[in-house]
Amino acid sequence: MQRYFSEIKKDNLLFLNKNDIYHIKTVMRMKENDRIEVVYQKQLHICQLDSEYNAKIEKIITNEFTKKQYVLCVPILQEQKMSFVLQKATELGVDVIVPILTNRSKIKIDGKETKKLERWQKICKEASEQSKRLTIPQISSATKITDLNFSGLKLVCSVKEKNNTLKKILKDNLNYDKIVMVIGPEGGLTPLEEKQLIDLNFIPISLGNNVLRVETVPIYLLSILNYEME
Amino acid sequence: MQRYFSEIKKDNLLFLNKNDIYHIKTVMRMKENDRIEVVYQKQLHICQLDSEYNAKIEKIITNEFTKKQYVLCVPILQEQKMSFVLQKATELGVDVIVPILTNRSKIKIDGKETKKLERWQKICKEASEQSKRLTIPQISSATKITDLNFSGLKLVCSVKEKNNTLKKILKDNLNYDKIVMVIGPEGGLTPLEEKQLIDLNFIPISLGNNVLRVETVPIYLLSILNYEME
Repeated sequence: MQRYFSEIKKDNLLFLNKNDIYHIKTVMRMKENDRIEVVYQKQLHICQLDSEYNAKIEKIITNEFTKKQYVLCVPILQEQKMSFVLQKATELGVDVIVPILTNRSKIKIDGKETKKLERWQKICKEASEQSKRLTIPQISSATKITDLNFSGLKLVCSVKEKNNTLKKILKDNLNYDKIVMVIGPEGGLTPLEEKQLIDLNFIPISLGNNVLRVETVPIYLLSILNYEME
Repeated sequence: MQRYFSEIKKDNLLFLNKNDIYHIKTVMRMKENDRIEVVYQKQLHICQLDSEYNAKIEKIITNEFTKKQYVLCVPILQEQKMSFVLQKATELGVDVIVPILTNRSKIKIDGKETKKLERWQKICKEASEQSKRLTIPQISSATKITDLNFSGLKLVCSVKEKNNTLKKILKDNLNYDKIVMVIGPEGGLTPLEEKQLIDLNFIPISLGNNVLRVETVPIYLLSILNYEME
């Protein structure tokens, strides 16, 4: 069943935004009384469409499943690669995405931030619908390395680091509720940036023998977290 | 240093193909005496370019690193998704890619196989250069499910399976040298196809709670194998 997210509820009705209604009418060619799934306040509702394309709630499905929080801090990438990271990270359960400003990033965001954030948020919403999530990942505004103040288990992918493998670190730290990961741009974080993160209690980790492209690293990390934490 | 693959050696010279020479001259703008890395018969050679853009061997770097063999059997996907899978799987160390013919695949290969295989092989070669591999993954011709005869640990991603998690299977089978993975198309393998694979001693595995797109699954699996096997 097709899934949508709603933010407005009145009595027994959930209201969809105009893009979703367009999708229901024109792409899915659904009609009155057809059924859809609607997520409202992290709860799944099985609904029937009324004649105005509002969703009448038939059943609420409660979900007891809780998972760890994943926060992904990635440099701003070229649009196609960024879309890829947002989409795949959403499939793999990311909760928060923080675009970070790094010294060696080649893509600048000056003046275009609001528009870009809106576009990125839309990609995450659509990927959340496709992958049947109950939440949409939040994208925060572009952040400096020195402002990455988080609690939880904090990891930074390091090219220099050889001994701290992800496996070793995860084995010793399985009880954290939140895991924050920082990924550097092509060419890596500068030694100063890495030091700034270590001062903020980030643990440098090695990703092993493979040479991965920047956009592959988030998928690699989230796959392993899903595997190790589930 | 830029890496290329060569198949022809004569005395102290390694010869590159005309695409690579074009890349060296026009994209990299390299000149006589500039250094490149050339892989010949799985060995890394540090070379200097001569005036004809042949590679003079200066040093051979021996590598004792051995890894398990990864065989990935994927349905034929739409070109953009296929390129994505080939590129990322190469980064993550895949050795053999088998395009499989499945009942629910929407993409047909009839009549275009030779051309497609050539294109796919080129994608793998370029990704191998970028990710500094010593081997290029081999792509075999399109294969029927019932012809997937392999030795090693054999896994098939199943939507029905709930208990056999990848973690459980890998924990009990860490000593295999070769791991073969079959991934179904959108909509999954048919019950008959899954049975045919089980008859060939493939073990059905569950991928957990996330709903992943077909093209994400190979990256998910290879990430975990790299993590678990290294």
